[in-house]
Amino acid sequence: MQTNPLLQKLTFLHEIDRLKSVIRQSPLLDRSRKENSAEHSWHLAMYALLLQDYATVPVDANRVIKMLLLHDIVEVDVGDTPLHSSASPEDQYHAEIQAAARLFGLLPEPESSELLALWKEFEEAQTEDAKFAKALDRVQPLLVNVITGGGTWNDNGVSLELVLQRYGPTIQRGSPILWQLCEQLVQKHFGPNQ
Amino acid sequence: MQTNPLLQKLTFLHEIDRLKSVIRQSPLLDRSRKENSAEHSWHLAMYALLLQDYATVPVDANRVIKMLLLHDIVEVDVGDTPLHSSASPEDQYHAEIQAAARLFGLLPEPESSELLALWKEFEEAQTEDAKFAKALDRVQPLLVNVITGGGTWNDNGVSLELVLQRYGPTIQRGSPILWQLCEQLVQKHFGPNQ
Ligand SMILES: [Ca+2]
Repeated sequence: MQTNPLLQKLTFLHEIDRLKSVIRQSPLLDRSRKENSAEHSWHLAMYALLLQDYATVPVDANRVIKMLLLHDIVEVDVGDTPLHSSASPEDQYHAEIQAAARLFGLLPEPESSELLALWKEFEEAQTEDAKFAKALDRVQPLLVNVITGGGTWNDNGVSLELVLQRYGPTIQRGSPILWQLCEQLVQKHFGPNQ
Repeated sequence: MQTNPLLQKLTFLHEIDRLKSVIRQSPLLDRSRKENSAEHSWHLAMYALLLQDYATVPVDANRVIKMLLLHDIVEVDVGDTPLHSSASPEDQYHAEIQAAARLFGLLPEPESSELLALWKEFEEAQTEDAKFAKALDRVQPLLVNVITGGGTWNDNGVSLELVLQRYGPTIQRGSPILWQLCEQLVQKHFGPNQ
């Protein structure tokens, strides 16, 4: 076990390289391949940087960016759980808690506790920063699906009602303005002229 | 031309999806494929989050993170220029300036000017935040090369002297502690027992 703080941090940074190999269900916008969780995390951080003014209440954009950079890191151990999956949420959360303990446990203090706390804050989605981060984590794949003509909704036979139910509350809670736009786009996507 | 600020921001966020298809020379640590510039940007932001205390002088980690998130966005238009490339730096910089103007020009104000200024600050590498960001942008591929047993150095026939010359000053300027470690690793990599 490494006890030099710099080397511990580098061990962690090397370990999370594997997030680049965790494949999500969403495609890239040009549909050339599916997105991985590392580039997804980069994209969400850019969403937070640019869309912070649309949060329900003022948020600390720097905290939201950090939260989104690390929100998927547990997937290095447990993989991505698609939104339209039938996995038990309890089993999934238990596995993710263990992964978070192992991965953030590679870090020295205070970073180990700080990053674990930020990850838990995102998962629990009770603070304003976390609610906004969660909303963005739903907005991005929703927009990908709309732009690519259905994306993961087609693959999973997801209806308008299911989309409104699975994305709506989370986006609405973090950003009513973004949900207003997303709802319009979704209604149009599933609409009679589709 | 879109004039609604939210839609302008979403247009920009969709445009930069293409950074996920810009392929760098560096491999992933498991050597399964080459890294793309979007996931590289995510990884560097994580480096900044964890290694901020090793900067030459105290830096604003939040600014460094933002700078690294957007430092490669011009590659959406001009592609990646490898460190060990023979392209003319002047031609390259001219093309990147044009790409930055087009891409950040998709955004409304004040974000358009703010992000362009942050990108230029990184490129010019005169502020302490930018010097540290530039150092990390060299540290990460250097570590990839060491860990993967040579990486892009093997591909390009790069010697110890060239590595010290092409990585050393930039890393040393932003983080003497990181350069001290990197130099040890590089000396060992090219050493007699290699
Ligand atoms: Ca996820």
